[in-house]
Amino acid sequence: MKRTTEKNLMVFSGRAHPDLAQEVAEQLGTGLVPQSAYEFANSEIYVRYEESVRGCDAFVIQSHTAPINEWIMEHLIMVDALKRASAKRITVVMPFYGYARQDKKHRGREPISARLMADLFKTAGADRLITVDLHADQIQGFFDGPVDHLMALPILADYVKQKYGDERLAVVSPDAGRIKVAERWSARLGGAPLAFIHKSRRIDRPNETVANRVVGDVKGRMCVLVDDMIDTGGTIVKAADALMADGAAGVIIAATHAILSEPAVDRLKNSPATEVVVTNTLPLTDDRRFDKLTCLSIAPLIARAIREVFEDGSVTSMFDGHA
Amino acid sequence: MKRTTEKNLMVFSGRAHPDLAQEVAEQLGTGLVPQSAYEFANSEIYVRYEESVRGCDAFVIQSHTAPINEWIMEHLIMVDALKRASAKRITVVMPFYGYARQDKKHRGREPISARLMADLFKTAGADRLITVDLHADQIQGFFDGPVDHLMALPILADYVKQKYGDERLAVVSPDAGRIKVAERWSARLGGAPLAFIHKSRRIDRPNETVANRVVGDVKGRMCVLVDDMIDTGGTIVKAADALMADGAAGVIIAATHAILSEPAVDRLKNSPATEVVVTNTLPLTDDRRFDKLTCLSIAPLIARAIREVFEDGSVTSMFDGHA
Amino acid sequence: MKRTTEKNLMVFSGRAHPDLAQEVAEQLGTGLVPQSAYEFANSEIYVRYEESVRGCDAFVIQSHTAPINEWIMEHLIMVDALKRASAKRITVVMPFYGYARQDKKHRGREPISARLMADLFKTAGADRLITVDLHADQIQGFFDGPVDHLMALPILADYVKQKYGDERLAVVSPDAGRIKVAERWSARLGGAPLAFIHKSRRIDRPNETVANRVVGDVKGRMCVLVDDMIDTGGTIVKAADALMADGAAGVIIAATHAILSEPAVDRLKNSPATEVVVTNTLPLTDDRRFDKLTCLSIAPLIARAIREVFEDGSVTSMFDGHA
Amino acid sequence: MKRTTEKNLMVFSGRAHPDLAQEVAEQLGTGLVPQSAYEFANSEIYVRYEESVRGCDAFVIQSHTAPINEWIMEHLIMVDALKRASAKRITVVMPFYGYARQDKKHRGREPISARLMADLFKTAGADRLITVDLHADQIQGFFDGPVDHLMALPILADYVKQKYGDERLAVVSPDAGRIKVAERWSARLGGAPLAFIHKSRRIDRPNETVANRVVGDVKGRMCVLVDDMIDTGGTIVKAADALMADGAAGVIIAATHAILSEPAVDRLKNSPATEVVVTNTLPLTDDRRFDKLTCLSIAPLIARAIREVFEDGSVTSMFDGHA
Amino acid sequence: MKRTTEKNLMVFSGRAHPDLAQEVAEQLGTGLVPQSAYEFANSEIYVRYEESVRGCDAFVIQSHTAPINEWIMEHLIMVDALKRASAKRITVVMPFYGYARQDKKHRGREPISARLMADLFKTAGADRLITVDLHADQIQGFFDGPVDHLMALPILADYVKQKYGDERLAVVSPDAGRIKVAERWSARLGGAPLAFIHKSRRIDRPNETVANRVVGDVKGRMCVLVDDMIDTGGTIVKAADALMADGAAGVIIAATHAILSEPAVDRLKNSPATEVVVTNTLPLTDDRRFDKLTCLSIAPLIARAIREVFEDGSVTSMFDGHA
Amino acid sequence: MKRTTEKNLMVFSGRAHPDLAQEVAEQLGTGLVPQSAYEFANSEIYVRYEESVRGCDAFVIQSHTAPINEWIMEHLIMVDALKRASAKRITVVMPFYGYARQDKKHRGREPISARLMADLFKTAGADRLITVDLHADQIQGFFDGPVDHLMALPILADYVKQKYGDERLAVVSPDAGRIKVAERWSARLGGAPLAFIHKSRRIDRPNETVANRVVGDVKGRMCVLVDDMIDTGGTIVKAADALMADGAAGVIIAATHAILSEPAVDRLKNSPATEVVVTNTLPLTDDRRFDKLTCLSIAPLIARAIREVFEDGSVTSMFDGHA
Repeated sequence: MKRTTEKNLMVFSGRAHPDLAQEVAEQLGTGLVPQSAYEFANSEIYVRYEESVRGCDAFVIQSHTAPINEWIMEHLIMVDALKRASAKRITVVMPFYGYARQDKKHRGREPISARLMADLFKTAGADRLITVDLHADQIQGFFDGPVDHLMALPILADYVKQKYGDERLAVVSPDAGRIKVAERWSARLGGAPLAFIHKSRRIDRPNETVANRVVGDVKGRMCVLVDDMIDTGGTIVKAADALMADGAAGVIIAATHAILSEPAVDRLKNSPATEVVVTNTLPLTDDRRFDKLTCLSIAPLIARAIREVFEDGSVTSMFDGHA
Repeated sequence: MKRTTEKNLMVFSGRAHPDLAQEVAEQLGTGLVPQSAYEFANSEIYVRYEESVRGCDAFVIQSHTAPINEWIMEHLIMVDALKRASAKRITVVMPFYGYARQDKKHRGREPISARLMADLFKTAGADRLITVDLHADQIQGFFDGPVDHLMALPILADYVKQKYGDERLAVVSPDAGRIKVAERWSARLGGAPLAFIHKSRRIDRPNETVANRVVGDVKGRMCVLVDDMIDTGGTIVKAADALMADGAAGVIIAATHAILSEPAVDRLKNSPATEVVVTNTLPLTDDRRFDKLTCLSIAPLIARAIREVFEDGSVTSMFDGHA
Repeated sequence: MKRTTEKNLMVFSGRAHPDLAQEVAEQLGTGLVPQSAYEFANSEIYVRYEESVRGCDAFVIQSHTAPINEWIMEHLIMVDALKRASAKRITVVMPFYGYARQDKKHRGREPISARLMADLFKTAGADRLITVDLHADQIQGFFDGPVDHLMALPILADYVKQKYGDERLAVVSPDAGRIKVAERWSARLGGAPLAFIHKSRRIDRPNETVANRVVGDVKGRMCVLVDDMIDTGGTIVKAADALMADGAAGVIIAATHAILSEPAVDRLKNSPATEVVVTNTLPLTDDRRFDKLTCLSIAPLIARAIREVFEDGSVTSMFDGHA
Repeated sequence: MKRTTEKNLMVFSGRAHPDLAQEVAEQLGTGLVPQSAYEFANSEIYVRYEESVRGCDAFVIQSHTAPINEWIMEHLIMVDALKRASAKRITVVMPFYGYARQDKKHRGREPISARLMADLFKTAGADRLITVDLHADQIQGFFDGPVDHLMALPILADYVKQKYGDERLAVVSPDAGRIKVAERWSARLGGAPLAFIHKSRRIDRPNETVANRVVGDVKGRMCVLVDDMIDTGGTIVKAADALMADGAAGVIIAATHAILSEPAVDRLKNSPATEVVVTNTLPLTDDRRFDKLTCLSIAPLIARAIREVFEDGSVTSMFDGHA
Repeated sequence: MKRTTEKNLMVFSGRAHPDLAQEVAEQLGTGLVPQSAYEFANSEIYVRYEESVRGCDAFVIQSHTAPINEWIMEHLIMVDALKRASAKRITVVMPFYGYARQDKKHRGREPISARLMADLFKTAGADRLITVDLHADQIQGFFDGPVDHLMALPILADYVKQKYGDERLAVVSPDAGRIKVAERWSARLGGAPLAFIHKSRRIDRPNETVANRVVGDVKGRMCVLVDDMIDTGGTIVKAADALMADGAAGVIIAATHAILSEPAVDRLKNSPATEVVVTNTLPLTDDRRFDKLTCLSIAPLIARAIREVFEDGSVTSMFDGHA
Repeated sequence: MKRTTEKNLMVFSGRAHPDLAQEVAEQLGTGLVPQSAYEFANSEIYVRYEESVRGCDAFVIQSHTAPINEWIMEHLIMVDALKRASAKRITVVMPFYGYARQDKKHRGREPISARLMADLFKTAGADRLITVDLHADQIQGFFDGPVDHLMALPILADYVKQKYGDERLAVVSPDAGRIKVAERWSARLGGAPLAFIHKSRRIDRPNETVANRVVGDVKGRMCVLVDDMIDTGGTIVKAADALMADGAAGVIIAATHAILSEPAVDRLKNSPATEVVVTNTLPLTDDRRFDKLTCLSIAPLIARAIREVFEDGSVTSMFDGHA
């Protein structure tokens, strides 16, 4: 008794950031699978799918935003339910990878929570991951299976280029550890000069954390200050201040993940930056929106990656070989 | 190069219910291992132990209370940190096992979250579990390793016996599925007669949920209404009402796990029960305390179990063979 | 070099209950894969398939009947042979799940054999399970993968309804722990009243195991006494006696799994039940057949479940969402 | 809270061959741990230990004799119960390794049951194995952990040497594949000449299975015919016949594992062998005993191995480096 | 969103023996997937595929020739890269299985490297193996998954039959342990008589390793001396000498794996063998070629096996059921 | 039968760098366990221990130097042999972690070989790792178990301080990504000023790789140029040149891992550096030694870490909490 095998794409969304998932589904020309999801009185999460998912190629989207443990647990439970309901393959889509900053033991007797997350998802039943702009590339190696690591750079950089391309730009990294990202931005912006901030200590007196020193010439230039995430905004706003103090013509801040924990919004509002460009890998609640914030959608990128994965195309080709 | 092997008991506590852990440690004549534990701005949890834990026999206590996903994740992260810091054996102590009620698929396409929890702790590095009064005994089989399943019955029943032993008692189960627990209570109370509540449907007209019928004779008796947990209190308070309507002399409610989600406290206060006896497997915040609530400590039981585990004694012997 | 993927359904049968497997295969419009299977002189089992099974979607049927360890081991060996012969997916079909009653530690130092069985099949190579009416629903959670849990209720209840629908029926559970099953029967039988037997102890004197008390009104009614399995028949026959003593008009016994160990047949023959309705999840040897025994075939249910699994349909839909 | 670690040896026995386990325990100066073990009516096995086994170093002895699947399953269940009861280390002692002959796929679509057995015991919780004279040495590699592989050769050969050492001996292998074992015997017997039987085909006409040809000169010699096991006895008795036909002075048969399936006893009784020397790795029921059968105890060997394992001694040293 | 599933065969080759892989790919009518592979200065290996491999059915060919650890590590790294690049299924093709001779502990405290290799490939991501003429059939059982075990016998034997079929042949095994292989050769050569060499000890005086004794009558016959591999050639050349000394008309040596370590070439050149027939499972460097060496290609056999695996055909059928 | 448990430290060494292992053993006051280890003719590695290792706490030292795949495979085989010979715990000591630089996918379809290595050692039987100065701290998270990550910084920095402490020092990082290491050096050297080299591109014209720019003021200072490893020496020698060009008073190069692949020695000899300080994590062959090279022993550090691990002390305390 033989039949031709069919594969069936189904997209699922946790409750952390349904707008993004909805947008991804629309880009794919499909809908989100309807489900029940809620908390019991003691805060335990319940999930159930309203349609058969048997044999499907499941993509389960959840943004790891605060309350992050709640949403990660919902994500895990959704994967468990899919596994037990006979999904054929389960791809966990985490636009922002929770706990990515705990990617090593900074000191003895710490956890390596980023590895733990990879293992928890594997245990729950994840076959593969799709994620965007990991805090460290090595985190790919924490998951025992394929990881499609997407980059928001083309989306962010092309926006900046289109809007500010006529100005004299510089690309600035807020700390010494991220200058390679700045180099990619520079290349994308037609060779804009690079600079970076040497933060927290004066280069000549390591025990005094007097100042943020600008390395590179930014005088009279519109500075594009780039990072992977903005959490409380302390580092990046200090960097913007330093740039202005060094004679920059202006500052634009660009980052993939807009965590925007308190008091990031106030800091950014009051900063010298004229525009803050982010993506919607994390939900932007209304109280996190402000005039100079521009939020670009990551949905087309994720949708295309899902399509490539589903159709056995190439995700690497989306980034000229760099993924 | 030979040495005699020593084992070193260390007790760790998450932040959900530090009082209980402290009490357990005191019972054991030891202290809690000092640690740093806090949330980052985006609600990610950070944990670090302040002392060397290398080679220790670790017991990690966390009560799975609301916000339950937060505390479970902290529990998992604590286990990961212990594993990576070379603890020799890690025993997860969960006085209340989170997600225990999702122990099966009630309908298709549900998760089995209770199994998922067992697997998550195994993945993080748990070698064994200690827990109290599981919602279903089968959950022991969800963990791939030893589970010491403790019973609060002796603590609760002895208290009731001492206080109400002179009255004419009856032991009542709030639903038909838990009558075996009531039987054990009856035995412990010197053979008090049994009754139970057949809830939600009239026995002769299954589609009408008119009433809670009392099965067994409770007239003139002080009824001890027993259950494993009180969440919102709906079921148990209706049961108490039914008992009084059936001529009971009074009602005492006894349960191991005092979840007491809204509006349990109001319901219990306004119920005909004269006393509500619980244990502190879960933290009792001040707003959950009320005059007729009695909270007995589970700490001596857990401490004794930890000691038996550490010293290769017998936990089964603590319950006359029933664990 | 590309090709369209085909899937190929193949049905395999152990030697415990070939008639059932044959019937399932016929329902599917296919045959059983021919094989050699026999014991060596020292009782070791040998299995070999006579046709290529490479890339097939294998369904391996074995009923766990006595000698149960023999048949479980044959089942495991069949799975191993399929795995090593490159079957693409292996679904273990166990109409009766062996060792299901040892689903927890009733006392300390017992095994949890039902979990062990799940792990043994996983180790041998099983990707998924299909089974019928588990002794406890939690056993689904013992297997690390999808479990399709089928219910014989529609088959049994519809037979009873058709034959006895005009009489005044009552649905009776032989013990307090299974009243939920009886509720489903009642719903299926158009709202027949419920009753159950409180066995082994007088409700008011727990230490005297004098009698089986009937709870609910059965006077003048034809009682349908329902259970998941009949092993030696002691419990259910005593329940039938109690019903008659309480004035029942008659008793019909219905159960999914007809283990019928000695002396079940004699007990049932001599019981007041007028009909005993079971399914053929287990083989009914001739010495187990008697006049008032009716055996309904479970084969159509299993065949439909296999078809749904093979075609990525919905098993849940077969039971209105309850599986 | 520190304590010196103690280890505690406990010996457990399945029901297949209690005499051997008893003898091993006596050699060790300890007793067998008391347990309940029986079958339910439907042949499911139940096991429970009567004493605490927490933290013990467990050695679980079971002989894989017929009904072999029954005893293997009991063995697995015993291991599961030990794991869940917190034994510290579990060593499975299988004097005869069941299914050892199915150690490869002789033809396509066969299982490799010997590997499956290794995996089943690992899954149940076995940390290590002790076994005697495997059918193929490679089976050691089937288990993912330490295997102590004992040899009965010293016991058997020393008996033969003592009794027949004054005669002109020859060592004979019953087939070409086992001549290396015969070489070890020869060395142990002071350099007795070797011979073997080329069975089933005439060396010059491969398609005619006319005869068993003796290779080597056995005329006038007392032949020690050696093998790892005697199942139905067909091969070895034909070998003995061939030896006599070739002028041997007499035949002694020596083998480790006395399976003695029907009709082995009759064949051996009627054979020209004057003595059949075996060990008690498998139980010798009374109907398997006959005048010329000598059964040597393997218990001292197993006991010594257990002691070496328990005391971190050397098992290799028991065999001059060959284990 | 549904699509018909396609499968896509892709063949990959390590750098150990690219000619063989190229020939296999040609037989399949496809090409090798282009890749970068080289060593860094400190001899670490780097591999990257130049084309998308997402969703492919990957066959990764590497011959385990000297420097064998280098090529095995490259093989493992290739598998890891495929796994992380989302290949759907990974079949490791090892025409010669490295470390096959260390398939057991010959003495205590040895590794079982052949099992280790199986586990390493499993860990790296191998789903299945294809290999040729394993040193011991049991090695199939070392891998936890399907193993297609191919035999070079038909290729080698048909060549010999065609060229020497008119002569009076004998098939000779170089030691007692491999006579079953010789029997298959004999059958394939129309019933040629068998003989073998009893090496290293005189049959009647085991401690004197005086001579290689020929067992069987080879006088005046052209002897086909068969083995699985030729490493340094010592054993097989001594066997050839013994045959000639016993009056053989000539010797032809046939073996699957031509390791030909020093000084095999010199030994074979100077041996009485008139032809040495091998396959190219291992690369034959120019300094290993000599006049009387004939190398037959194994590529058609491997290509056919890959095709059967890819198309869900039967590999067993390629060998009349013996694989 | 009870006994006090003893633990027994045993140190094993592969053949890559026996001097280091010997020195470690001497520091511990023990010897290396004698073993046989050699290659077969076809380059397969053979290992056997000459003493019983049963129950020992094994530390297996191997430096991953060229030919690196050979030595890694020997390391794996040694672990397998220990596992099968019943070592109680196996700690893999890799002073230099092979393949650490392939710790992420720099481009699509690459392996993550550093993760693969962690998994291979886990599979072989490693319980834990000890290593020195990983290329990226995240690699700790690749191993599923405890990793003790040692730092050579105290050894190297104290040497420099003692010898050059009176001079005006500066600490220089050869690239922007390693400035945090330089900060730790600076702190250890009493607050020496920091500088680093921005390599490969002019900061203002990213596409021209004209120069290595020195960031920070090094004029008139003795520069300590620090890195984790020196492979071919290209980067570090160019950095030294840039420092001299910028007016440095002198250059001292310090690095943990002296890979020194061709042409590192020539480059370093001809560089302006007056001293090159390294450790012996990797063997320094005679042709790699030159006048201005100083090699400090890492053995005391490793020995102390082994002792702390063995005695359940604290490795973290060796580094003031930073490990």
